[in-house]
Amino acid sequence: MKNYIKTDEWNIIEEGFDPHRNKISESLFSIGNGRMGQRANFEEAYSGETLPGNYVAGVYYPDKTRVGWWKNGYPEYFAKVLNAANWIGIDIRINDEVLDLHTCTVSNFRRVLNMKAGYLERSFTATLNSGKQIRVHAQRFCSIVDDEAGAIRYRITPLNFEGQLTITPFIDGDVKNQDANYDEKFWEEVSREATSQGSFLTLRTKKTGFDVCTGMQFKICREGVEVASPALPVEAEKYVAGRVVVSVSANQEITIYKYATNLSSENHAREDLTGACKQLIAQIYAKGFDRMLEEQAAAWAAKWQESDIIITGDAAAQQGIRFNIFQLNQTYTGEDARLNIGPKGFTGEKYGGASYWDTEAYCIPFYLATADPQVARNLLLYRYNHLPKAIENAAKLGFTNGAALYPMVTMNGEECHNEWEITFEEIHRNAAVAFAIYNYTRYTGDTTYLADYGLEVLIAIARFWAQRVNWSSARNQYVMLGVTGPNEYENNVNNNWYTSTMAGWCLEYTLDALHTVQRQWPEKLAAVIAATKFRAKEETAQWQHIIQNLYYPADETLGIFLQQDGYLDKEQILARDLDPAQRPLNQHWSWDRILRSCFIKQADVLQGLYFLEERFDEDTIRRNFDFYEPRTVHESSLSPCVHAIIAAKLGDEQRAYEFYLRTSRLDLDDYNNDTEDGLHITSMAGTWMSVVEGFAGMRVRNGHLHLAPFLPAKWQSFAFKIRFRGTLLKVQVDKHGVNIFNQSDKEISVYIHDTAYIVKPQDSITIANYQHLSS
Amino acid sequence: MKNYIKTDEWNIIEEGFDPHRNKISESLFSIGNGRMGQRANFEEAYSGETLPGNYVAGVYYPDKTRVGWWKNGYPEYFAKVLNAANWIGIDIRINDEVLDLHTCTVSNFRRVLNMKAGYLERSFTATLNSGKQIRVHAQRFCSIVDDEAGAIRYRITPLNFEGQLTITPFIDGDVKNQDANYDEKFWEEVSREATSQGSFLTLRTKKTGFDVCTGMQFKICREGVEVASPALPVEAEKYVAGRVVVSVSANQEITIYKYATNLSSENHAREDLTGACKQLIAQIYAKGFDRMLEEQAAAWAAKWQESDIIITGDAAAQQGIRFNIFQLNQTYTGEDARLNIGPKGFTGEKYGGASYWDTEAYCIPFYLATADPQVARNLLLYRYNHLPKAIENAAKLGFTNGAALYPMVTMNGEECHNEWEITFEEIHRNAAVAFAIYNYTRYTGDTTYLADYGLEVLIAIARFWAQRVNWSSARNQYVMLGVTGPNEYENNVNNNWYTSTMAGWCLEYTLDALHTVQRQWPEKLAAVIAATKFRAKEETAQWQHIIQNLYYPADETLGIFLQQDGYLDKEQILARDLDPAQRPLNQHWSWDRILRSCFIKQADVLQGLYFLEERFDEDTIRRNFDFYEPRTVHESSLSPCVHAIIAAKLGDEQRAYEFYLRTSRLDLDDYNNDTEDGLHITSMAGTWMSVVEGFAGMRVRNGHLHLAPFLPAKWQSFAFKIRFRGTLLKVQVDKHGVNIFNQSDKEISVYIHDTAYIVKPQDSITIANYQHLSS
Repeated sequence: MKNYIKTDEWNIIEEGFDPHRNKISESLFSIGNGRMGQRANFEEAYSGETLPGNYVAGVYYPDKTRVGWWKNGYPEYFAKVLNAANWIGIDIRINDEVLDLHTCTVSNFRRVLNMKAGYLERSFTATLNSGKQIRVHAQRFCSIVDDEAGAIRYRITPLNFEGQLTITPFIDGDVKNQDANYDEKFWEEVSREATSQGSFLTLRTKKTGFDVCTGMQFKICREGVEVASPALPVEAEKYVAGRVVVSVSANQEITIYKYATNLSSENHAREDLTGACKQLIAQIYAKGFDRMLEEQAAAWAAKWQESDIIITGDAAAQQGIRFNIFQLNQTYTGEDARLNIGPKGFTGEKYGGASYWDTEAYCIPFYLATADPQVARNLLLYRYNHLPKAIENAAKLGFTNGAALYPMVTMNGEECHNEWEITFEEIHRNAAVAFAIYNYTRYTGDTTYLADYGLEVLIAIARFWAQRVNWSSARNQYVMLGVTGPNEYENNVNNNWYTSTMAGWCLEYTLDALHTVQRQWPEKLAAVIAATKFRAKEETAQWQHIIQNLYYPADETLGIFLQQDGYLDKEQILARDLDPAQRPLNQHWSWDRILRSCFIKQADVLQGLYFLEERFDEDTIRRNFDFYEPRTVHESSLSPCVHAIIAAKLGDEQRAYEFYLRTSRLDLDDYNNDTEDGLHITSMAGTWMSVVEGFAGMRVRNGHLHLAPFLPAKWQSFAFKIRFRGTLLKVQVDKHGVNIFNQSDKEISVYIHDTAYIVKPQDSITIANYQHLSS
Repeated sequence: MKNYIKTDEWNIIEEGFDPHRNKISESLFSIGNGRMGQRANFEEAYSGETLPGNYVAGVYYPDKTRVGWWKNGYPEYFAKVLNAANWIGIDIRINDEVLDLHTCTVSNFRRVLNMKAGYLERSFTATLNSGKQIRVHAQRFCSIVDDEAGAIRYRITPLNFEGQLTITPFIDGDVKNQDANYDEKFWEEVSREATSQGSFLTLRTKKTGFDVCTGMQFKICREGVEVASPALPVEAEKYVAGRVVVSVSANQEITIYKYATNLSSENHAREDLTGACKQLIAQIYAKGFDRMLEEQAAAWAAKWQESDIIITGDAAAQQGIRFNIFQLNQTYTGEDARLNIGPKGFTGEKYGGASYWDTEAYCIPFYLATADPQVARNLLLYRYNHLPKAIENAAKLGFTNGAALYPMVTMNGEECHNEWEITFEEIHRNAAVAFAIYNYTRYTGDTTYLADYGLEVLIAIARFWAQRVNWSSARNQYVMLGVTGPNEYENNVNNNWYTSTMAGWCLEYTLDALHTVQRQWPEKLAAVIAATKFRAKEETAQWQHIIQNLYYPADETLGIFLQQDGYLDKEQILARDLDPAQRPLNQHWSWDRILRSCFIKQADVLQGLYFLEERFDEDTIRRNFDFYEPRTVHESSLSPCVHAIIAAKLGDEQRAYEFYLRTSRLDLDDYNNDTEDGLHITSMAGTWMSVVEGFAGMRVRNGHLHLAPFLPAKWQSFAFKIRFRGTLLKVQVDKHGVNIFNQSDKEISVYIHDTAYIVKPQDSITIANYQHLSS
C-alpha cells in the first residue's frame, strides 16, 4: 500500500485506484492557497471511505473540551479547524445510475498533483453496473491569485453509449467534523439562494459566529459549445445546487466548469457577504478557467523562483523536497497576521488545525529565507496580537505582573490544550516565541519589530520565567520544577536542561533587547515601559540574579548536559538495542514505561544546542550529540531535522543525510501510517532546514551570512535560493564546490567555511571544494 | 446551609424543608444493607433538585471511557455503580393535584435517620395550591435480615378536606446515571408484569448483562383497615405500577405499605429471577412491616453491640462517630467476597462506586476489630479472586512472570481508572493489598489465609516491585522512577519514600510469608509454588538484592525521610502561612502550581510511618511528623486519621483530638461542600481508627493486644468493643483510667502502656490513670 507514489520531479502521481489508500491520497493531493484549502476528495459522489475536508483559514469552532479528569486551569474549549461547506461537489447521474467510484469498475485511474502550476488533476474510466463506460478528466485548484476562489474543469466522455447525463453541481453545508467531541454539527444556515445563474449558501458557526458565504456558478459545454438548457435550481437545508440534464452521444465530451468562492465575515462586512460573494463569482466566471489556470501557473512559478530547492541526481529527493515546499506555500502565504500554520495545514482535522510552537521553532526559518520579511513578521505579529490572552492565560495559572504564557495550542490566543503535563508544563513554547523574535531580528537586521512589538512580548515572557523558577534553599540556586521539555516522553520533570537554558536565555535576550531599543529607539522604549508597567531597576535586577544563579543540570564525568535531574537514574539502553517489533514505542509500550525509559522522543538537549549553537564549543556539542542521539527514537517528525543539522555541523555527512531521509518523504511514503489524517506540514519546514542549515550549513552570525556546504554523496548537486537583507542569492552546491549567484542589485559578503567572500550584484562566485574544516 | 443537623446521640435529624440542602440530605439520610442501598429521595414526586440513587451491590456498567488524550495502557471502560430501578416511588394525587414538595408549601418537615434501629423517617405537612392540607409520615428501611428487601410505611392524613386520593406505588426502571459518559441509559427491559397482586420489572444492564428483578406489592389501609378496591395495574416501558383511588375524609389516616425486593442474577438463576422475586415478595408481605421493622431493630442492636463507640460528655462527637459506624455497617456486611466498599457506598455515583486502596488501608482495621474475622477475610478474598486480572493488568503495562498490579479503581478486577499519573503510577495500592494480608494475619493470628491465598498474591506483588525498580548505575542502587504516592499533589516523582519503603517491605514480608508457610503449612507451599511457577532460589535472591540495595531518599541534616527526590528543591512554605482564601488549594490553584508546591494532600511519609511504626524510633517519627504535618493541607479525607494516630502516639493529645475532629463530622457538617455527591464512606473508618488506634492507642504487636489510652479533654469517657483472637473486649476510658471487660470465655493478656495484664473471661480490669509514657 505504501510507496505507491510515482517518482517525478514536479508531480505527485498516483496510478490505479485503490480504495484502501484513498484517504492517504486525499491528504497527499490536498490543495490550498493560504486562505482556503481542501483534501483531494472527489467531485462526484463517493460512498467508499473518505475524510471530507474543506477548510477556510481562520474560521474555527470552540468545541467543548472532552477530558477524563478535570484539572484546575484547563480550558473549557478546544478551538478546531472546521470542516466547511463542500464546494467541489458535482453529482453525475448517467441515465439512472449515479457515478460513484465505490460502486463501479474503475480503470486507467490517475491522480496528479502538479506542483509547478499548482493544480490537481484526476482522470479515470468508469464502467457502470449497466456496462456503460465513461471517461472523466477533472482538474481543480484553489487560486493563489483570487485567493477566495477555486475552479474546477470536469470533463465526461461517454465511451460506449448515448444517453442523458444529469449533472448537479452543488454546495453542501451539511457537513461534520470527524473529530467533533460531542458529535454535533458546527454550522447553522444563515441564508441560501439557488438560481440558474448561481447559488449561494451562507452558514454561521455556532458559538463563534463566523459567517462564511460559499457561492458557485457553472457552465456546461458539449464539445466546447455551451449547453443552452438552463439549470434547475435545487434547495434544501444547508444545500444549494443547480441541475442540468444533457443528452450526449458516444465520444462526445461534456465539460463542466464550476467556479466557487468562500468569503468569510473575517474579511468582509457581514451584511454584504452574499453581495461580495456574487461579485467575486461574476468576476472569476468572466475570467474563465483557462485564464485562472494561467495566472495560477504564473503565480506558482514566481513562488518557485524564490523557494525551490533543486536536487540533481536523485529524483525521489527532488520530488520529496518540492512536495514539502509546495505544501508549506499552500498553507501559509504570510499576508494575514491573523493566520498561522497548523500542523496539518488544510489537509486534515487532527491537532485542531491551530498553532503550536512548531511555527516559531521550525517554520520561521523557512519563511525568513524564502519570502519577504513581512511573511515572518506576520507570524510574529500573530503572537504579539495574542499577548493579552497569553497574559490572561498565565494569570489563570497564578502568575502576576503581566507575565505571559503562550498557549500550547491556539486559534485565537486562548489555550486549547487540556493535558496538564503539556498544557501547564510544556512551557518551553514561551521561549520559542522569544527565539522567533531573536531569529527574525538576527536574520533581517531589522530592529523595528523589536522596538514596536517584540520587546513588549519579551518582557512578558521574561516575567513568566522569573516567576516560574523558584529558589531552592537546598541547592542555593534557582530551579525550575515540574516541566515537560520538547521530549514529551518525559513529563513533569525537574530542571529540564533545555527549558531552563532557554528560560535563562530569554532573560538575557530581554535585557539585550532593552539595551538595543534604548540605544536605537529611545523614544519607543518609553512607550513599551508604560505599556508593560515595567519596573526597570527592580525587574532587571531580579532577572540578573536568576541569570547568575539558575541551575542547569549536567554530568561532569560524561561531560554532558542532563536532560533533567533524574535522567541518569534511568536504565541506560540504546535505541539500536530495542527489539524492532517494539518500535515505535508509542504504539507498543504503555505510557509509564515510556516515561520511565531513557528513550527520547525528539531533540531536547540537542534542540537547545541547535538554537544556541554559538554558546557551545564543538566538543561539547559532539559529546551531547554522541550521548543523546543513540537514546533518541525520533518518534516526532520534528526530531530528525535538528539531528541532521547538528550532524552536518559535526562533519558527519553520512548521518546528516540519513536524518534528512527520515522526514524528506515522511508523508509521500506514509512512514508513520498516519498520512490519511493529513500531512505533517510543520515538519516539512524541518526538511527544508536539513538541506539549507544542514547540508549547506547556513547560519547568520553577527549580521553575516555563513555557509558551510557539503554535497550528499548520492546527489550530483543541489541548489536553493535565499533572501538575505535585501539580496536574493542562489546557492548551488555540486561536486566541484559551491557557487553563489547574487540576483539582487546589492553587494553582499558571504562567509563560506568561515572565510568571507564578496558577491557583487548580479554576479557570482565559485569556491572550489575543500576539506570540511572539522573533518 | 451547613450544620443544620440537630445533635442527637442516636439520630440524624433535619428540621424544616430547605430545597437547597435537599441533595445533601439525600446523601446523609441514605440507607442500605450491604446488598442494596439508596439515597434519601422522596417516595412521592419531587420536581426540585434531586440526585435519584438506588443501587444494587455488585451490579455495574462498564461505561466507555472518556478521555482527552489517550495513552497506551488506558482501559477502555470505567465500571460504574449503576443507578437502578426506583422501588420507593409512590405517586400521590389529591383530587387533581400532584403531591410534590417543590410546588406546595411545606411545614413541620422533619427527617430522621434512626441509627439505632436502622430506618429512615420523614414527616411533613403540605399545603397544596388549592389550599388542601395533608400530613404525611413515611418510614422506610433496607432490611438487613431480608437483605434483598425493603419496606415502606407511608401515612397520609387530609387535614382540612375530604376527597379522593389517587395512590400509585410504582417501580420505574427508566433511570439514568448522572455521571454517564455518553448520556446513555444503561438498562434494557427484559420483562415486566403488573397485576393487582404485585408488579415485577426485570431489567438487564447493557454490555455486562446483569439481570435485576425488582418487585413490589402493596397494601392500603384507611384508619387501619385495608381498603377493598383492587389496584389497577399500569404498565409502560421499564415501568410497572398499581393504582388505587381512595376516598378519604378529613383527619382519616390512609396508610400505604409498600414492600419491594431487588434480586440480581448474581445471586439467583437468571431463568427463575422473577419466580424468586415473587416468592420473596410474598414472604415479606406476609411478614408485614411491623415485624420486619422489629427484626431490623434487633439486627441493628446486635451490630451496635459489637461496633458501637460510646462517648459521654460530647453529644456531637457521639452522633458523629455513630453516623460513621452506621454508614460503614450499611455499606459492607462481609458476607459476600464479590462485594467491596466503594468510597461513596450506596450514597452516590461519584468515583464509580468501585474499590480503591481505601479498603485495605482504612477499612480493614475497622472490620477486623468490630466483626467476625470472616468479614475482613472476605475483603481479602475479593483481591485474591481478582489476582488473574491484576496479572493481566500488569502484563498490559509490560510486566512479565506473573507480576500483578492491582487496579486503582475496580469493580470486577479490571482497571477502570484512566489518568496516567494515577493509573500507572499510584502503584502503592499494590502494597496496601499486601499490607492487608499482613494486617489480617497479625490481628487474627490465623495463617491459613496466608497459606491458602495470601502467599500467592504476595508473590505476584513482590514480582511487580522487583520489576518496577531499576538499577541506577549513577547511584549504584535500585531506584523507583515515575511514581505517585498517596500524596496526589505530587505526580510522576522519582523515589517516593512511601512507595519505595512499602515496596521494600512487600519483598521482605513475602520472604517472611514464604518461611511461615514453609514452616507451618509445608504441604500447601508446594501448591503455591506450582500455581505461581515460583523459581524460589533465583527470585528470592533477586528480592534480597533489592531489599539490600533499594534507595530511600532522606535528608540527614533534617533527619527526615524525603517525600521524593526533588522535595527539598521546592519552596518551603508552611500551610499555616497560606492565605485562607486560597484554601482548599485544589479549588483555587491551577494543577501545576499545586504540583510544584511543597503542600501535601494527605499523609505520605507519615502513612508509611503509621503502617510500619515498629521499624522506627519515636524520635524519627516525631521529626518527620514535625516536618511534614505543617506542610500538609489534608485535602483528602483520608489524611487526618493517620495524623491523629501519630500525634496520639507522640503524646500530643490536643492535636490528636484536633485531627480527629476534622473528619468526625465531615459529612454531617458538609466540611468539603460535597456531601450532596454522596458520603465519604471509607474515610469514616479512619475516624474510627482515630479513636481506637489514636485515643486508645490500640496496636497488635507480637500477637498481643496493646493499648495506650488517653481521654480527650472534652470528653467524660469513651468506650468501644473489639474482637481479638476469640475474645470480645469492651474498653472504657474515663478520667480515672481504663477499664477492660472481657465478654468472652477466653482469658487474654492485654498490654496497657506496655505493661501486660491478664483479663479473665467475663471479668474486667481497671488500670488507673498515669502519666503518658512519652509526655
